[in-house]
Amino acid sequence: MHQGRRHGGRGPGRLTVVSLGPGSEDLITPQCLAALERAEVLVGYTPYLDLVPEAAKAGKDLVSTGMRHEVDRAEAALDAALDGRDVAVVSSGDAGVYGMAGLILEMVETRGLRDVLDPEIMPGIPALTAAAALLGAPLTHDFAVISLSDLLTPWPVIERRLEAAAQADFTTAIYNPRSRRRHWQLGKALELLAAHRSPDTPVGLVRQAFRQDQAVSVHRLADFDPSAVDMVSIVIVGNASSRIVGGRFGGDRMLTPRGYAGKYDLDK
Amino acid sequence: MHQGRRHGGRGPGRLTVVSLGPGSEDLITPQCLAALERAEVLVGYTPYLDLVPEAAKAGKDLVSTGMRHEVDRAEAALDAALDGRDVAVVSSGDAGVYGMAGLILEMVETRGLRDVLDPEIMPGIPALTAAAALLGAPLTHDFAVISLSDLLTPWPVIERRLEAAAQADFTTAIYNPRSRRRHWQLGKALELLAAHRSPDTPVGLVRQAFRQDQAVSVHRLADFDPSAVDMVSIVIVGNASSRIVGGRFGGDRMLTPRGYAGKYDLDK
Repeated sequence: MHQGRRHGGRGPGRLTVVSLGPGSEDLITPQCLAALERAEVLVGYTPYLDLVPEAAKAGKDLVSTGMRHEVDRAEAALDAALDGRDVAVVSSGDAGVYGMAGLILEMVETRGLRDVLDPEIMPGIPALTAAAALLGAPLTHDFAVISLSDLLTPWPVIERRLEAAAQADFTTAIYNPRSRRRHWQLGKALELLAAHRSPDTPVGLVRQAFRQDQAVSVHRLADFDPSAVDMVSIVIVGNASSRIVGGRFGGDRMLTPRGYAGKYDLDK
Repeated sequence: MHQGRRHGGRGPGRLTVVSLGPGSEDLITPQCLAALERAEVLVGYTPYLDLVPEAAKAGKDLVSTGMRHEVDRAEAALDAALDGRDVAVVSSGDAGVYGMAGLILEMVETRGLRDVLDPEIMPGIPALTAAAALLGAPLTHDFAVISLSDLLTPWPVIERRLEAAAQADFTTAIYNPRSRRRHWQLGKALELLAAHRSPDTPVGLVRQAFRQDQAVSVHRLADFDPSAVDMVSIVIVGNASSRIVGGRFGGDRMLTPRGYAGKYDLDK
């Protein structure tokens, strides 16, 4: 179909996948900001384009689409780059973590464009570590990252991964934990984890990290209420060593010790 | 011991754990750069302090120590903050991923300082997603992150996690893959993964991501040579769907499809 298509006699343009981080301008790297400023065309899911600093959007062609139109966005980005334009595809968080980086590379391959377009992927702060920083230090030891979205992954595969993370004592970060259509999966996931964890295991919930409506809370696994969780949340369940530590100003925090206390005798 | 200690009649200062990202200045967030510029005292492992931009170091007190002196660094940082100073503890990558964030929170608790010091943790680009961006898009589906360092973790725990990641088909990112003292573990880890993966599974190796001596390569699991790996490398082993995709300019890349092709019929 579009294979190798060129327009207007210009050579192919530039295609960059830009990571916006969690949503605050001061968490966008200078590398990504420069790519946004340089681009002529910005392509992204509408709420992600909203995260692009205004100065980098002014005078640009914006191609935005709704949720689950990732393929349309990727097509539009490739077409604009083939037209010779400088195109930035934006993702929130890190574009490589459940983001657009994979789909862009996949479509370059599928459309037979690997000798024409060579997309650059720019990393960003993933929602995962943004949430972790707000919670304290839950990820200082081995961890697993699992999405509960079963749109593209059969639920039994997700369940097998939750079970493995529970058994092997991974701290577990859960993406896409809950939506109106996906209302029972988080409860089931917590049940699978609880079978291998103490009821006191801390569960961190971060909603809208580093955005205006940010909410951060730490709970006991036995008390955690999944119905408080929505699509723009990340849930982090501790491992067997994780514990809740108090803080004067910020309320409870979640800590997964790396093992220093045992090794170095911190209580000297 | 030092519980609640104060010096010179000043109140406690400010303690910030700052993430430097992989090592390039244009991957340090404005938030972290501002914290470095504001700080009076910078504390870190010597090679990490080398990553702090010169302008942010000028005129500062620098407290640097060698490897495995994390506890000394954390003590020094807490002492300086108790002295009323503005202290930044620096980690490369994201300070919450095998970094200093956990140890700082742990020592605040151990020393009974939770009503005195409330460290702020600032996220950064983890080595994990920096490496992923250079490799292509290996992390677009569920993944596990495992350190092979057995200084603080018994090897059987590490092995159990590798086995779980292999069985449940997680893309697996390996931190601290190999050093002079830790020479056999990576070979063993790859053997455990290979028992559940095709010989064609891509393995990505990134050394010194976004630094001067950066080296990026993609291999078949069956051909991968662990002896090429060192302490400043990250290894990412794909899941059952990961594959090698070609690129014109950058050589082979590693892609873990999220499943769009099956769902949306990309070959239309």
